[in-house]
Amino acid sequence: MAQQDGAEYEIRVLQESDLYIESGFYATLENLRKEERIDIENMRRQFRRRQQSGVVTYVVVLGGQIVATTSVVFEDKFIHNGGRIAHVEDVATRKGYEGRGYAKALLQQATTLARQEGCYKVILDCSFDNVLFYVKQGMRPVEICMRVDL
Amino acid sequence: MAQQDGAEYEIRVLQESDLYIESGFYATLENLRKEERIDIENMRRQFRRRQQSGVVTYVVVLGGQIVATTSVVFEDKFIHNGGRIAHVEDVATRKGYEGRGYAKALLQQATTLARQEGCYKVILDCSFDNVLFYVKQGMRPVEICMRVDL
Repeated sequence: MAQQDGAEYEIRVLQESDLYIESGFYATLENLRKEERIDIENMRRQFRRRQQSGVVTYVVVLGGQIVATTSVVFEDKFIHNGGRIAHVEDVATRKGYEGRGYAKALLQQATTLARQEGCYKVILDCSFDNVLFYVKQGMRPVEICMRVDL
Repeated sequence: MAQQDGAEYEIRVLQESDLYIESGFYATLENLRKEERIDIENMRRQFRRRQQSGVVTYVVVLGGQIVATTSVVFEDKFIHNGGRIAHVEDVATRKGYEGRGYAKALLQQATTLARQEGCYKVILDCSFDNVLFYVKQGMRPVEICMRVDL
């Protein structure tokens, strides 16, 4: 348990049993993208697919509610003589819980895991507005993320 | 077989049997990063790990030699109600074979695969110098890639 502003929170790995509406997990993800409706069966399928691919999702739990999350996707490279890298994806803090250091704590947790897994780097894509936040966490801007919608 | 400047080339998926020094695969990757030495056993291990994670690596083969490559890493999301995305990684053209449209052809192949796999977007990180190239391929700059070395 860690403490922030007097409120104790826990960082742990997301469980399949967290995939119900009232856990706060989807409310947290809404800060990334608002969904019309949540298909729980589909979420369970994705959970299992992600587990098979070795994706690790962390959640910050405060008073039994999920209030922040991020995921780590590992990629085994041929370059770096077969090195491994970690992609940090979907950092989200639930509306009303921002500015309490949860994203920072999650990033530290993700970086610790990446180090344990023998990764040589951690990368993530963020909006222009969030560059300074990640610079403060010790990251540096290196490339441009390009996108095409299908 | 496709044709470029009179020379026929083929785009196909990388096979484990391509992982020997003389295939041109490592010479191609050297345009991303020069290695002191190649550990073939490690490369085979990475090949199998990547296969398990569903990573698809394409190569351009010209006269029996690999002259360009890229990889597609799929990620199953919770957002977009359990959507799938494709990360295009490690686009490389072998020294001396640049400017012949291989990277463009590989990107088209990767995008076709992503569409077949039901992805809602393709993303890739590139250097500032290469933004215009990817804009010409129909992509747009959307975010900044941040990095920390471990």
